[in-house]
This record gives sequence, structure tokens and C-alpha cells, in this order.
Amino acid sequence: MKRSERLVAMTNFFLEHPRELFSLPYFVNRYEAAKSSISEDIDIIDGMFQKMGIGELTTVSGAAGGVQYIPDLSKENANHCMEELIELLKDPARILPGGYVYMSDILGHPKHIREIGKVFAAAFHGLDIDYVVTVATKGIPLAYAVAQVLGVPVVIIRRDPKVTEGSTVSINYVSGSSRKIQTMVLAKRSIEEGSNVLIVDDFMKAGGTIKGMMNLMQEFNATVKGIGVLAEAEDEDEDRKVDDYISLLKFVEVDEVKQTIQVSKGNYFI
Amino acid sequence: MKRSERLVAMTNFFLEHPRELFSLPYFVNRYEAAKSSISEDIDIIDGMFQKMGIGELTTVSGAAGGVQYIPDLSKENANHCMEELIELLKDPARILPGGYVYMSDILGHPKHIREIGKVFAAAFHGLDIDYVVTVATKGIPLAYAVAQVLGVPVVIIRRDPKVTEGSTVSINYVSGSSRKIQTMVLAKRSIEEGSNVLIVDDFMKAGGTIKGMMNLMQEFNATVKGIGVLAEAEDEDEDRKVDDYISLLKFVEVDEVKQTIQVSKGNYFI
Repeated sequence: MKRSERLVAMTNFFLEHPRELFSLPYFVNRYEAAKSSISEDIDIIDGMFQKMGIGELTTVSGAAGGVQYIPDLSKENANHCMEELIELLKDPARILPGGYVYMSDILGHPKHIREIGKVFAAAFHGLDIDYVVTVATKGIPLAYAVAQVLGVPVVIIRRDPKVTEGSTVSINYVSGSSRKIQTMVLAKRSIEEGSNVLIVDDFMKAGGTIKGMMNLMQEFNATVKGIGVLAEAEDEDEDRKVDDYISLLKFVEVDEVKQTIQVSKGNYFI
Repeated sequence: MKRSERLVAMTNFFLEHPRELFSLPYFVNRYEAAKSSISEDIDIIDGMFQKMGIGELTTVSGAAGGVQYIPDLSKENANHCMEELIELLKDPARILPGGYVYMSDILGHPKHIREIGKVFAAAFHGLDIDYVVTVATKGIPLAYAVAQVLGVPVVIIRRDPKVTEGSTVSINYVSGSSRKIQTMVLAKRSIEEGSNVLIVDDFMKAGGTIKGMMNLMQEFNATVKGIGVLAEAEDEDEDRKVDDYISLLKFVEVDEVKQTIQVSKGNYFI
């Protein structure tokens, strides 16, 4: 195989296997090339990944060592991605009765979701995460997009138990904005004891749902290492139940009468 | 930029933009290279993508022409992917009371999900699809994985209306296996009239849920171009409500007493 072909194959390989460690002999064998050639290939790919702002290839030395692709997203790329979203979200046609904002189309588009996932993954880049946790339904695509970049599984909390989940742990919690008692359910076998988790959701107002997820994680002796929400809303009552979180967007004001949406970048960019 | 660097950048670019058409001048401008060099790069990448069985770069000629990456997955790769899944699914520890099989961990792992998504996308490769449609909750990750490869949005049908969706269309249907009346809800603005859709779900037994989705699509004047389920179960009553579908896996027998799971490849491989 020529170097040019190998570069195409190896670029694809690293992109497909984020945060997985592979030894140099693995590539020597896979691409039937000399160790020195593979090393040069890795330098070229690493250089370009950094130049493009999509992460880097890092080398772990020693007997169990090798090379791995650590995805990242430059703040410049992240900024650009959020500015695009803000343009889309400003559209007054998105205003729903009650002052809610229609976002399902954005959450439904793999292109946006993948970009948002990369921004989150970059934001929680240094943490040692075992699972990305979210609650059905709207947070699911986001959670997968983040998990894909971090190379870890997703765990989905449900609102109702299902027979195909086996035995479950459930908690009741008070939804912050509606002040209703709600239930969250998670299959017992879905998380190993003592894991580190990252909580991801699409939207946060008073934070009751996020707080519920945090409580449920305690039942599994899991440590919440980070919390990320795509968008937060101004909470008039200012009795927010969660302090330490990252938001990518913030709805400053949604005015049903004037038909205007004011949306800015979230606290990650401050 | 050197050819070697350009190949890394362009490989990443095509993988990130499946089924999007870009003109040669776009690349000439983006990578500051001669048209002839870009053409050669495209030939190299196309050749390697085909060799790896992950699709090809196709050229559309004419004024509005250009190059696009059409992802595919060779049957060999698809077979390999399913054999890995079958090994995982055979584990008797997955048997749940009632003869159900625990699959949430597999559906939770981005690596498996992405591979399954690629197999589906290859299976429905030639169809002209506008949306991938699924129903909450378990089909969602699969739908996104397919949609990512096809480069189209996902539309999620819910079991219950939500205020953040705006006005909705709902239907009642009879679940095939439990014979209970259930509801499906979809936001009015989620699908344009006269669209072509691909229905994706994780599991099918009698097919009542899939049939319900098909009926709901009629309400939107949408044409169901294809139906894909990850796993189907033998339906004892043989009154399956859906005929024309693709399954990747088939649960032949789940024996709670003997604690055995028999699982084979689905009808896509026959």
C-alpha cells in the first residue's frame, strides 16, 4: 500500500476509533508497512488533526503503549457552531404557545447533533467518564453524539419501567418548573457500581430533572463528573436546583406577544 | 498544503459530509491546490474507500455537478458486524422474566450503534429518503445512526404529547403482542407533506407498532419507502401485521427454562 492510500485508511481508522489505544505493531501488521513509515504517517495525521482543530493523536509509551486519537474541538470551531445554531433559533416561527421554543428539527438533524456532541465532548475533555447518562426522550441524540466522541456507552433513564429492561431502580422527584411529582426509572444492570458519569440533556429551566438524575445516580453509587445542557432558560424564581453545569446556549427572553426570541451563547463561552 | 496533508483533511471532510455534493472549485479554494491535484486526491480517496468497503466518491458532471461521498458497507463487513452481535446476544445472562432479552447495553454503545446504522444505510442505499422515522425510546439511537449515514433528519414519534412540540397529530393503534390500545403522537411541523420516509425500530414481534407508524405516516401523506428492524422475534400466532421489512437479526428461540437464546441473522442476509 502506498503512503497516500495508507493516510486515507488510517485517517478513517482513527476517526472511527476515538480514545482507543492501538500499538504501532498493530498498524505495521494491518497496513503491511515498516514501523518507521507508520510513525511518519502518524505524525502527518496528528499534525493535520491539530491544524483542523479536531483533536490530536497522542502516544503512550511503554510495553502497553501505543497511539490513540483524542478528539477535541477548538473554541473557534465551537463558537462558529453555536453562532449557526443561534441564527436558526432566533426565528420567531419557533415560538410555541406558553413561550416554549420548537427545537425538535435541530435535535433531529444528525449534522447539528454531531457538532453539538463534539462541543460537549471538548468541554468535558479531561474528565474520566465511564457513561453518558440522559433521560428520555430529547436528550438521547445529544447523549449519543457526546458518547461517540468520548468512546463510552450511553445510559438512558426512562419515565416508565419497561419489561425489556429487567429489574429497575426508580426515584420520585419534583419537577422544578411544573412542581409535579415525576418518576425516573433505570435498569439495575445498566451501570456498574462506582462509575463516573456525565449527565447530558437538551434543556434546563429550574433544574429539577437534572437534580432527579443526580439523585438516581447516587442510588448506583455513581459519581457525577459533569453536567451539560444544550440550552438553559432564565429561571425567574431563581431557585435553580443545580449549580455546577455547562450550557452551550441560553434563552434570555422569549416574548410571545412581540414574537421575539433572544438567545445567546451559554456559560461555556463566558 | 502537501498532498499527504490534503489527503488527511479531505478524507475527514468527506466522512463528515455524507451525500453532500461539493464542486471541484470548492476544494481548489478550500485547500489552495490546483484542480488537477484535487482530482488526483479524489481518485486516491475513492479507490481506498472502495477497497475498505465503506462506499465511494461519485462524480456528478455538469454545471451543478461535483463530488459526493456515498457511504456503503460491503456485505462482508455487514456479516462480520452481525456475527459479533450474535456472539454478544447468545449470553443466557440476557434472559429476562417473560422470555425477553436484555439488549439495552448493545443499543447503548455508540460503536455497535454506528455499525448497525451503517448496515441499515447500506440496505436502504438506493432509496430516495427525506426522513428516518422511529418511535421513542429504544429505536432513537438506531434511527440517528442510519440518518447520519444517509445525511437526512430524524423524526421521533412519541407515546405522549409534549408542550414543547406544538400542535400534534395522534393515532390510536392496537399493539400486536399485548393487544392493548396505544397512542402515537407526532408534531405537525415535523414532516413536510409528501415526503419519503424510512421507518427504523429496534425490535418487532407481531408488528403492531410498525403498523401504527405506517398509519401515522399516512396522516402526513408520507410514503414509507422502507422498514428496518434490528431484531425480529418468531411470532407464534403468525398474524404479523407487516410484510415488507428488513431485519438484521432474528430471535429463533428464547428458552427461559433451559436458559438458552438462539439468535441468527435476519432476512437481510437470506
